[in-house]
Amino acid sequence: MGLVVQKYGGSSVADAEGIKRVARRIVDTKKAGHQVVVVVSAMGDTTDELIDLAEQVSPIPAGREFDMLLTAGERISMALLAMAIKTLGHEAQSFTGSQAGVITDSVHNKARIIDVTPGRIRTALDEGNIAIVAGFQGVSQDKKDITTLGRGGSDTTAVALAAALDAEVCEIYTDVDGVFTADPRVVKKARKMEWISFEDMLELASSGSKVLLHRCVEYARRYNIPIHVRSSFSGLPGTWVSNEPPQGVKPMEQAIISGVSHDTSEAKITVVGVPDKPGEAATIFRAIADAEINIDMVVQNVSAAATGLTDISFTLPKAEGHKAMEALTRAQTVIGFDALRYDDQIGKISLVGAGMKTNPGVTATFFEALSNAGVNIELISTSEIRISVVTRVDDVKPAVQAVHSAFGLDSDSDEAVVYGGTGR
Amino acid sequence: MGLVVQKYGGSSVADAEGIKRVARRIVDTKKAGHQVVVVVSAMGDTTDELIDLAEQVSPIPAGREFDMLLTAGERISMALLAMAIKTLGHEAQSFTGSQAGVITDSVHNKARIIDVTPGRIRTALDEGNIAIVAGFQGVSQDKKDITTLGRGGSDTTAVALAAALDAEVCEIYTDVDGVFTADPRVVKKARKMEWISFEDMLELASSGSKVLLHRCVEYARRYNIPIHVRSSFSGLPGTWVSNEPPQGVKPMEQAIISGVSHDTSEAKITVVGVPDKPGEAATIFRAIADAEINIDMVVQNVSAAATGLTDISFTLPKAEGHKAMEALTRAQTVIGFDALRYDDQIGKISLVGAGMKTNPGVTATFFEALSNAGVNIELISTSEIRISVVTRVDDVKPAVQAVHSAFGLDSDSDEAVVYGGTGR
Repeated sequence: MGLVVQKYGGSSVADAEGIKRVARRIVDTKKAGHQVVVVVSAMGDTTDELIDLAEQVSPIPAGREFDMLLTAGERISMALLAMAIKTLGHEAQSFTGSQAGVITDSVHNKARIIDVTPGRIRTALDEGNIAIVAGFQGVSQDKKDITTLGRGGSDTTAVALAAALDAEVCEIYTDVDGVFTADPRVVKKARKMEWISFEDMLELASSGSKVLLHRCVEYARRYNIPIHVRSSFSGLPGTWVSNEPPQGVKPMEQAIISGVSHDTSEAKITVVGVPDKPGEAATIFRAIADAEINIDMVVQNVSAAATGLTDISFTLPKAEGHKAMEALTRAQTVIGFDALRYDDQIGKISLVGAGMKTNPGVTATFFEALSNAGVNIELISTSEIRISVVTRVDDVKPAVQAVHSAFGLDSDSDEAVVYGGTGR
Repeated sequence: MGLVVQKYGGSSVADAEGIKRVARRIVDTKKAGHQVVVVVSAMGDTTDELIDLAEQVSPIPAGREFDMLLTAGERISMALLAMAIKTLGHEAQSFTGSQAGVITDSVHNKARIIDVTPGRIRTALDEGNIAIVAGFQGVSQDKKDITTLGRGGSDTTAVALAAALDAEVCEIYTDVDGVFTADPRVVKKARKMEWISFEDMLELASSGSKVLLHRCVEYARRYNIPIHVRSSFSGLPGTWVSNEPPQGVKPMEQAIISGVSHDTSEAKITVVGVPDKPGEAATIFRAIADAEINIDMVVQNVSAAATGLTDISFTLPKAEGHKAMEALTRAQTVIGFDALRYDDQIGKISLVGAGMKTNPGVTATFFEALSNAGVNIELISTSEIRISVVTRVDDVKPAVQAVHSAFGLDSDSDEAVVYGGTGR
């Protein structure tokens, strides 16, 4: 009967009905004997509408003022939610990020949380209130300006408050039922996981799963705050994300593999005819880094002995493709390559599971499944608990389905595939 | 070339075009060599839309949360305005009421300003910024909660900041050209005044003129801050409100009368058959006061000798009529009256001018004008510089027109009527 932090996204509070439904859920949690802190996002399309207004008055809205503008969105939803709770006969108070003590650096539009000093929240709870906190926003430590946390910021607010208040759990309410073994829109037989480790969740988040952002999971792992991802519509238990399975939740029997993720938001650039000598790769990726572009996978072909030339390929977000091509073209004489090839018809499929560390055969099964599905592999990269491949974008769906089946993750499988021995 | 505070109302910043137009005007003021502080209201219908949302989730929205909600409106307009100014190549920063140091009491929805500590505004100005401040809002001294100032709050914010920053002038931009000798919708020949004294403006504001609220003028008078009321659309000079006419502005020649105002928002209650003995009126108005109802005019008829009974009539806002009738009905046995009459078909016409203190004949001319127009008078009340009468609501328009003409205020008059002697 401790403290619970709940986070509700914009789709859960899209209109007055949604706000009233969420208010009832919050009151139920309070009635069950918990202290409740709620983090809320802006209603439905509010943020998009505010961005649209900003674009009408200014081609490139300034950082400080853009943050001031966007934070109006949570101000509206949190005040309405507090009113709705009071109408149900319970005390509630809303707090801005600044009032809640969410202290950040001064990088507008994508600030990082430096500290959380939730003195006012603690007082409000002690006085019997439900505390409603604006997600996605904070106040800068040096200038006391309003900041926003960038994409997925409200989830991060929730986890940060849960850590600062030593909450039992951080419940992330969303419009899906939890974390699935694959995207249910691609794999009909995808299963909802009851539990997934922080480690596996981090790999899924960084390889295409959109339920939780990497940043939020990383924060939760650092402070060991269990996350419960669940639907604000169904009321069903969702997926626990934590170090160990919570009491009463049995992880999938023998599961070596947590899930299969995919990502079609990346493009591939190939630098053709690079002299195969020390320092060439460094020159290429310095040019990319100077343009502030993040890259994902990198592969260098075996050099052709006759020419002494090689090709280097890498993947990056499509949104940054144009900028990267420009940066490389500018550096062509310095680097000394023959040509650039840009390809945005690719997709990435990743297999994630801490079990693969100690189970041989995972890699073989993975490639066999792809081969049987007739999928050609263009790039490969691995971490200790993940294998990723790049394919044609049209192959992504059959590839994910084939791999999901091959590892016994389909909901009609009796059990997941089990390997013996060590290594993979 | 000192500091100028400008206030723009919701109709001036109703859309992106309006915001850009206002931004250009602000930049022009800055270019003329002034330091500029801008107070801005919420865009167009934003506040009404937020109130509508609140009513959808809660029948009686709670004070603290209602203020949190409404203040989102100015947050949006001020951030957009700052962006629009930066797009024009000038530095601007927006500040909430709290950041601007607008300290209030804790009466939510109609807080009073206790103090203004505009340290951050001063710093922003010294760094070369145009400072944009959210109107209508502040932060409570004791609880540090967000408050709103109630009706006309943004004008009050502007005057309060002008006082705290020792501004040369507080410019109130609105959708009319200034203060007129009568409502131009009623009197086609009404004239825009170049100047009006605080004293006369206070009387006009409290007797039906809606250009400036009494509260804002009172604040300006206390700190001797000249107000310049003008249109954000026309760019023409408007009306100065101050102790003395500003240099270069000649007040209307010999004007004894500033203007004629009217008010059709009140109702009249008559308490019939009240025993004419000491303490009766007190009992009636204690019942009204206990119901937190403000009354305006009060008249007691001469007692009928035969019965020893009298009638007492008073006026009050129509919106509070129902509550007053209930309060009096509950107190009927205590007060001992015969009946109550409620009449909402009344109007009030007021003649305002400090000149009437020293010019006899004003009252006579006023009543002659009403008589010639065939207007019957139901109640009369006077202050040192104002005469008000209550008539049938249908008589308001001809009465205002007749009085406006009789005092030579029509725009085609050669000059205003002049009286000699003293007293009236």
